[in-house]
Amino acid sequence: MQKSLSVYDSDGSTFAPLVVIELVSETKEEAIAWLLNRVRDKQQDGGAELLVEQLTPGAQGTEKDNPNVYVVGASWQRLLYGAEDVGLFKEFNDGSMRGFTYANKHNFKEFQGDGDGFLSMAECQYIIKHELDNLRAKDEAHVPGYPKMKLYPGKSVIRRMQSKGILVQVFPLHEKEELKRLSFSWFKKIKLSFQPLDDIRHYFGEGMALYFGFLEYFTLALIPMALIGIPYYLFDWEDYDKFTVFAGFNLVWCTVILELWKRLSASLAYGWGTLSRKKAFEEPRPGFHGVLGVNPVTGRAEPLYSNAKRQLRIYLVSVPFVLLCLYLSLYVMMIYFDMEGWALMIHDEEPTFWTGLLLFIPSIIYAVVIEIMNLIYRYAAEFLTGWENHRLESTFQNHLVLKVLVFNFFNCFASLFYIAFVMQDMVLLRQSLATLLITSQILNQIMEAFLPYWLQRRRNKKAHKRMIKTMEDKELPLSEQVKLEADMSTYLGTFDDYLELFLLFGYVSLFSCVYPLAAVLVVLNNVTEVYSDAFKMCKVFKRPFSEPAANIGVWQLAFEAMSVIAVVTNCALIGMSPQVKSYFPESETQLIMWVVGFEHFLLASKFILTFVIPDVPKHIQIKLSRLEFESLEALKKRVIPKNNMKGLQGE
Amino acid sequence: MQKSLSVYDSDGSTFAPLVVIELVSETKEEAIAWLLNRVRDKQQDGGAELLVEQLTPGAQGTEKDNPNVYVVGASWQRLLYGAEDVGLFKEFNDGSMRGFTYANKHNFKEFQGDGDGFLSMAECQYIIKHELDNLRAKDEAHVPGYPKMKLYPGKSVIRRMQSKGILVQVFPLHEKEELKRLSFSWFKKIKLSFQPLDDIRHYFGEGMALYFGFLEYFTLALIPMALIGIPYYLFDWEDYDKFTVFAGFNLVWCTVILELWKRLSASLAYGWGTLSRKKAFEEPRPGFHGVLGVNPVTGRAEPLYSNAKRQLRIYLVSVPFVLLCLYLSLYVMMIYFDMEGWALMIHDEEPTFWTGLLLFIPSIIYAVVIEIMNLIYRYAAEFLTGWENHRLESTFQNHLVLKVLVFNFFNCFASLFYIAFVMQDMVLLRQSLATLLITSQILNQIMEAFLPYWLQRRRNKKAHKRMIKTMEDKELPLSEQVKLEADMSTYLGTFDDYLELFLLFGYVSLFSCVYPLAAVLVVLNNVTEVYSDAFKMCKVFKRPFSEPAANIGVWQLAFEAMSVIAVVTNCALIGMSPQVKSYFPESETQLIMWVVGFEHFLLASKFILTFVIPDVPKHIQIKLSRLEFESLEALKKRVIPKNNMKGLQGE
Repeated sequence: MQKSLSVYDSDGSTFAPLVVIELVSETKEEAIAWLLNRVRDKQQDGGAELLVEQLTPGAQGTEKDNPNVYVVGASWQRLLYGAEDVGLFKEFNDGSMRGFTYANKHNFKEFQGDGDGFLSMAECQYIIKHELDNLRAKDEAHVPGYPKMKLYPGKSVIRRMQSKGILVQVFPLHEKEELKRLSFSWFKKIKLSFQPLDDIRHYFGEGMALYFGFLEYFTLALIPMALIGIPYYLFDWEDYDKFTVFAGFNLVWCTVILELWKRLSASLAYGWGTLSRKKAFEEPRPGFHGVLGVNPVTGRAEPLYSNAKRQLRIYLVSVPFVLLCLYLSLYVMMIYFDMEGWALMIHDEEPTFWTGLLLFIPSIIYAVVIEIMNLIYRYAAEFLTGWENHRLESTFQNHLVLKVLVFNFFNCFASLFYIAFVMQDMVLLRQSLATLLITSQILNQIMEAFLPYWLQRRRNKKAHKRMIKTMEDKELPLSEQVKLEADMSTYLGTFDDYLELFLLFGYVSLFSCVYPLAAVLVVLNNVTEVYSDAFKMCKVFKRPFSEPAANIGVWQLAFEAMSVIAVVTNCALIGMSPQVKSYFPESETQLIMWVVGFEHFLLASKFILTFVIPDVPKHIQIKLSRLEFESLEALKKRVIPKNNMKGLQGE
Repeated sequence: MQKSLSVYDSDGSTFAPLVVIELVSETKEEAIAWLLNRVRDKQQDGGAELLVEQLTPGAQGTEKDNPNVYVVGASWQRLLYGAEDVGLFKEFNDGSMRGFTYANKHNFKEFQGDGDGFLSMAECQYIIKHELDNLRAKDEAHVPGYPKMKLYPGKSVIRRMQSKGILVQVFPLHEKEELKRLSFSWFKKIKLSFQPLDDIRHYFGEGMALYFGFLEYFTLALIPMALIGIPYYLFDWEDYDKFTVFAGFNLVWCTVILELWKRLSASLAYGWGTLSRKKAFEEPRPGFHGVLGVNPVTGRAEPLYSNAKRQLRIYLVSVPFVLLCLYLSLYVMMIYFDMEGWALMIHDEEPTFWTGLLLFIPSIIYAVVIEIMNLIYRYAAEFLTGWENHRLESTFQNHLVLKVLVFNFFNCFASLFYIAFVMQDMVLLRQSLATLLITSQILNQIMEAFLPYWLQRRRNKKAHKRMIKTMEDKELPLSEQVKLEADMSTYLGTFDDYLELFLLFGYVSLFSCVYPLAAVLVVLNNVTEVYSDAFKMCKVFKRPFSEPAANIGVWQLAFEAMSVIAVVTNCALIGMSPQVKSYFPESETQLIMWVVGFEHFLLASKFILTFVIPDVPKHIQIKLSRLEFESLEALKKRVIPKNNMKGLQGE
């Protein structure tokens, strides 16, 4: 295992603390004793067979500190069995990636001696989280001491306690030394280099590493566009006729990069062992509630919620709400155009430097308002999606993403579409795009990194003033470290980060032909984004549990949908350019027919291309088929000896 | 097993003959002896462990008869083990479908006593074919007696002998009694009823049953359209304005029926146990050749053929050839339009009844020419695709389907598109569509059923004149039955049948709004098609090996592509209708914009719909997840006892 940051006493033996469980301070004694017993119990008795110990307050401990903080670890062997349980893939001796099994452990490449360092700390923490989540109620009717907190056999104990509020949080501990090394290679050195994706994956897990990988890939993919954009911007500033070529480039670019990303992400995921890993059966999400019934799949007693009711909630409440919000957003857009017209009027009456500046004010205000609306809507969408009461976390996420995407897309792009296709004012389009991009970027950086960091610092200063000295001390005692980390903000997942990338991708792929500097701005933003995201992951937030992921999931779909819209939009922009119009001087109908035909051809090519380009590179495909073939052969071999034993002579 | 039609002596015991192997009459003795030994050898010695015996010529046997005809069977136990080998799914005691295992056999619903009747004859024949195909060369360097017929270790013996021409054919035997019952319930009774799909599947396998299921579904789906079409045709014959509503109906119809078919086919495939069945590793197709190398997936020696060379052949020869054929087809189309104009001229000069008839002549000639071109092209495409040297039968099929589809689509529909959108002549469109439909249907019925049947009868009369009496005799001896069936034509798969349906689907979905009677004609055609197809399967062709299939494969995709084209075409037709044009009297541009917008909206809805409607009905989804969950749980349980044994106390 990792050089454990600190060892701990437990029944005379020592263990490395990996995960922290925090219960509310007034939790009843019997509930605590019961939970600890269940965590420690042997697996055959339905326990998790983990090691758990109360955190003894450090020297500076005061009465105000919550005493119900527990650290969880596990024996090395337990972790290896757990790795088999969660279906971890590791590199085999022959270079292929295979599902780890305890019996076969010595055939895995990095398993040396007793397997020290075979599992990363993030993997160990993931295993412990998995085992804790799978700690299920046996015949207890309720949590001891809490008669109202009902339990059904097979119900996850930890999730129930979490949703009922006794369990404050479960989080994995940081590893100071490793974090320091990672921070250094990631964002502290000023050298231009690729991100240490393998190290990020090692420390934060595959989901996070894929996000940073995508961010880097997206930035690199933008560089050619930025390089074309700069001379365009410098020399053809007022020559809008020239944007046709750029729109054509956009068209091809947005299709190709997404296809290539799929292949790159498959390569990454294969190397990390998540590509062919099977998903475990998904348990209901913590917030899910319903009437007790029998799950038709598992045969276990669990709350059921009628699908018809959920559909009613979605179609009678959520959909109208989203439509209302869209209408509101449209209304705000109209106010913006009024303001815009008013500013223009003032500037026309009295054209000074100040009134020239005034021209930008409506756009800036609008950009700020958009950001605020997005933020408020985000909370509303989360509340509504929770209220829809989805059984699985994945469907919850899909519905949330859909709601948020539709609104954010509309909110951010409606005005641009209106300017481009209804007003057909390319100057205003360029100006709006620039203002939107710059303002939203500045706001984002503030909201995302500086604000949480500042809040964090202020809180730390207030609450742990006494600790400032020890914070600078490298050898912080465990109890202090746990307390510090418990107070850090919780990282809520990559949702907002992907959403931001999605909108940036939209600005670039949809309209960058009229404002070629957009790509440059987005590249600059992404570079700072890498640093600020890395900084916040390492310094601002609690360490998140690693999340095994084989791809960027629903976001791939979202980006592809955007690229389809980009094809349509760019074709329309090309059709509107005076350059193209001049080819059809007498017949507008013919122009439109050509553009529509061209667009249909492009869309068809796009779909054929998506179909023809294999999503997984050939060499990985071969490795995957080999594994599949071997398992089929093994199955056959398993049959033949039986065949021999029982023989055919019987007949 | 089935009531075996006849039993046979082999080493003193009896067995039911299931499959016939025919070698060329001059095959060398040692090759025959070697092959028979390999077929009879025990599995642990690399044999197939089947029963095989030479067919003794019947009483009327003459010297002209080929003596090298062998019948193959297997012991009942061998077949059950084989069922496990091929991964057959059967209904379990709890009503779910599960992979059959010999050890678990008594828990399967239909397994009573010693399992008589558990496997259908078609399944037994499929198992025997699978075992024969998997008979692999050991250390023989070549087929004994044929030094040039090289064998590599692991190479399929049967496939090699087949591609080298020693093996004439391997085919399954008909079962007279069952066939009689099936024929009666299928096409001999004149009552209007659904086809006996389960019986068809029982006798011919899942692939065939899905074809007939799709044919029936497609026909039923057409009935509402036909019912709307008849009054349309009767009362609005000349009122082309009204076709808008019909085009709108087409739009929705072709999207909805394909989605519903996916669900229906999943239900059928689940009931037949093919839905969740895993595909076995695909061996190279018989015609594949190359330089001996090592397959990176299996690690076995097998011929390899460079992918780059294949790509060169595809892009430098096949693609230009297809384009040339398309050009040729275009040229023929132009000749047709010249003829059309010439006929019209004559009719205009001297309008009599005969010149009125003359108007239809070009269309009829064109329809015949199209059919002939399609037929010739079909052979060329097969030759070219074979020459491209694809490793797998499935890729071969995909490339063949793509080639044939593109050409047939172009050949059949180019003239209609030209008339509709370039000439914009709805009267001519209607007339051409009618002539094309009717002529091609008549030709098809002749080519498909009557011609082979007539050829068959003539051949039978000539060669087996002496047998006529015995043919009428119900109790035909085995040797005579085998000889009769060996001479029947070989059924070449469902390709042509699906292709015909595809073109009919095209006629209906693309243009039926201008000729509402099309749906009626297609329904009539499909009804006769069911009968003629059923007749040819039962009477004209050799019994084909059953082919397990979970869906209609690449054809689902082809039909969906057609339905996308149908959306575009119908939108364009709507836009061209005078009815719609009258809404935009002053601006053609605005009309086009609206139509294009509407079309984009429809295409987007179509894709969203495809995404939202689950491909597998809920109740089957639940059953599948339950199975998956159980296997996951079983895996976990498998781990826990190991856990207990080795214990965690070790640390």
